[in-house]
Amino acid sequence: MKIIKNPIAQTWSSLCKRATINENSLQETVKTILNDVKLNKDKALKKYTQLFDGVSLNSLKVSEKELEEAEKLVSDELKSAIQLAKSNIEKFHTSQKEETKKVITTKGVTCWRKNVAIEKVGLYIPGGSAPLFSSILMLGVPAKIAGCKEIILCTPTNKEGKVNAAILYTASLVGVTKIFKVGGAQAIGAMAYGTETIPQVYKILGPGNQFVTKAKELVQQQGVAIDIPAGPSEVLVIADETSNPVFVAADLLSQAEHGADSQSVLVTTNEEVAKNVEVELKKQLVGLPRKELAKKAIENSFTVVFNSKEECINFSNEYAPEHLIIASEKASEYIDGVMNAGSVFLGNYSCESAGDYASGTNHTLPTNGYAKNYSGVSLDSFVKKITFQEVTKEGIDNLGEAIELMAEAEGLQAHKNAITVRLKELNNV
Amino acid sequence: MKIIKNPIAQTWSSLCKRATINENSLQETVKTILNDVKLNKDKALKKYTQLFDGVSLNSLKVSEKELEEAEKLVSDELKSAIQLAKSNIEKFHTSQKEETKKVITTKGVTCWRKNVAIEKVGLYIPGGSAPLFSSILMLGVPAKIAGCKEIILCTPTNKEGKVNAAILYTASLVGVTKIFKVGGAQAIGAMAYGTETIPQVYKILGPGNQFVTKAKELVQQQGVAIDIPAGPSEVLVIADETSNPVFVAADLLSQAEHGADSQSVLVTTNEEVAKNVEVELKKQLVGLPRKELAKKAIENSFTVVFNSKEECINFSNEYAPEHLIIASEKASEYIDGVMNAGSVFLGNYSCESAGDYASGTNHTLPTNGYAKNYSGVSLDSFVKKITFQEVTKEGIDNLGEAIELMAEAEGLQAHKNAITVRLKELNNV
Repeated sequence: MKIIKNPIAQTWSSLCKRATINENSLQETVKTILNDVKLNKDKALKKYTQLFDGVSLNSLKVSEKELEEAEKLVSDELKSAIQLAKSNIEKFHTSQKEETKKVITTKGVTCWRKNVAIEKVGLYIPGGSAPLFSSILMLGVPAKIAGCKEIILCTPTNKEGKVNAAILYTASLVGVTKIFKVGGAQAIGAMAYGTETIPQVYKILGPGNQFVTKAKELVQQQGVAIDIPAGPSEVLVIADETSNPVFVAADLLSQAEHGADSQSVLVTTNEEVAKNVEVELKKQLVGLPRKELAKKAIENSFTVVFNSKEECINFSNEYAPEHLIIASEKASEYIDGVMNAGSVFLGNYSCESAGDYASGTNHTLPTNGYAKNYSGVSLDSFVKKITFQEVTKEGIDNLGEAIELMAEAEGLQAHKNAITVRLKELNNV
Repeated sequence: MKIIKNPIAQTWSSLCKRATINENSLQETVKTILNDVKLNKDKALKKYTQLFDGVSLNSLKVSEKELEEAEKLVSDELKSAIQLAKSNIEKFHTSQKEETKKVITTKGVTCWRKNVAIEKVGLYIPGGSAPLFSSILMLGVPAKIAGCKEIILCTPTNKEGKVNAAILYTASLVGVTKIFKVGGAQAIGAMAYGTETIPQVYKILGPGNQFVTKAKELVQQQGVAIDIPAGPSEVLVIADETSNPVFVAADLLSQAEHGADSQSVLVTTNEEVAKNVEVELKKQLVGLPRKELAKKAIENSFTVVFNSKEECINFSNEYAPEHLIIASEKASEYIDGVMNAGSVFLGNYSCESAGDYASGTNHTLPTNGYAKNYSGVSLDSFVKKITFQEVTKEGIDNLGEAIELMAEAEGLQAHKNAITVRLKELNNV
């Protein structure tokens, strides 16, 4: 990784810029697919599955029999691991439940809000090089805790028309209601519009390639909610003299193996650590099965050396990383300074892998600088917060005049009138 | 309003469909404006302000002197009313603060989340026929409670280059940091990209016409967060034999006066009530200054009569109204049935006007059926919920093996390796 020493603040914003893709042609392709799915439904889904995945499917829905077979294919060890992860994710996301608090704002005026599950949600899980069953835990567990009635899942199959067994096992475990063998932009279209087989949902969540991401963006403009805008995954590690270069290099590489467009940034006050990490990176890279991807990602990454810890955290806030690892024995000293980050890992033993799989936090996080304005997926992502109010006669008596004045000043006479007719009734005029 | 009796369930979805606008030409116009603002900044803003508003501005920023003058122009009565509303909105939104809860998911693994303010937010307040200072309360108060550092506001001026005094007074009162005299799509562009005068923000909130709405939608695709997708305002009133037809008609009209595209829907088990409301509508409409708009809106609205309360609430959930008024003495019986609504008003004295101005709940709510998948604006709208985790040596010892198994099963060897290097260190291998 190239090392940049003490960059002046004016250069930070360009250093923090993520790579962009030219997407005009992408948009047209995805629009065509979405329109086709809207119009031709299951027929279009089968056509694109044949065309893009080379698979001819009779049935889009995963059968009970396939689910039973999958259960047998997953080892007991992996099942236990998934169950442990599920239990931790459940604990953390259950803690996000909010109690209804009734607030009396004025005598006779009681306001509260109530979290109500989004009725129908759709999860997208990519196939491709990695079968991301962990993302099913991250999306399915909070959906279930929230109380979503319909939780469907779309995922592409392999060339034989089969879905990865661990994906099916995990989907069953978390309570996904229906699983469909369809991937790509066409899957997003199916969940957004509904087809003969696949029910329409109100919100679509989950990772995907650029076609999936673009499709989510387009259906969002048509009224379907999505989790968060997506971009390549990224980590920023803040290291100091108490960091372990072996650990830091391993963490940078775990990010880099996601894809050539992933970014791993090291920010440190200690140039010695930076050099040791560089040596370790080369050493550890050799043994990785996905070393080609990781190597490219590392080439697009960089190290920044600053004089002070304050500059390190300020730079991190400007970068707004999806994952922020504070690889220091004094990590707690940094907490108050964190303004923009998706998820923060404190200390030398809090590696990103822990949060990716099993510690309990969610791994669906804002990338691409979106940590400045978006939160990661949580229980909140699966509910609407509906406000309620009860205004009694006393309440309208207390508030009525103020409302009349404000409505009149805004030129909204009928708004005022809704109060006036009630005050009249109260005063028997 | 036309009365529809006992529509069968298959027709509900078409009854609940909102009017759509053809927006292809709109999109091109707004794109042109946004690109111009991105490129030419203040110069473009002044050009469009001249072109669309007929105003030639020397300075875009509202001066201290203008703020002082505005304060003198607002009556003491209106000031008190605004202060009362502010106080109630503060109480309700402060109650939405979340305490940080640390959760030990596994021994040695502690997870929590912390709400951190979005640093820079931009509020848009339309000019036009109604000076919506109430929306400044609804957006500025929670922004301040959240701790947003920069809260800017854009709003158009009148022909004399002046901003409405109540808007300036309210903006000062809630702690808006800077106010700019610019409206329309160009204002959204300015806040999204930044200009010489107007700082770039991370999130844009507030109501607006179709140009503003489209501009928000477009800049959202470029990484700026927005509050919620917007559409015409709407109310659904559920009435029964205990409703007061005078009140119901006043509430339907207070919605209708927003614009010809607003919708007021009445759902009732009691045809008598429907007829009495109709009579009242005609009577109250006559006296309204905005009667032309309200009349058109009422013409586009409808009444549905059902046999049962259950059907009423089911239909309401299918419609997913922005505002739901349960105009019944037995309103509390309906609460558990509400699945999709922005804000709910319970009982004959809980009119929408109360929530629009002063009861404490937010009036920035999901329209157009978005109450199925979006929440209204709340304190949440101004924060990111950042997750933190601290995994100790004991924690990694407890979780490590499970993570290794899962990472390997996903084909992500470097993720596994980040654990392995730590377990090795622990075991001194």
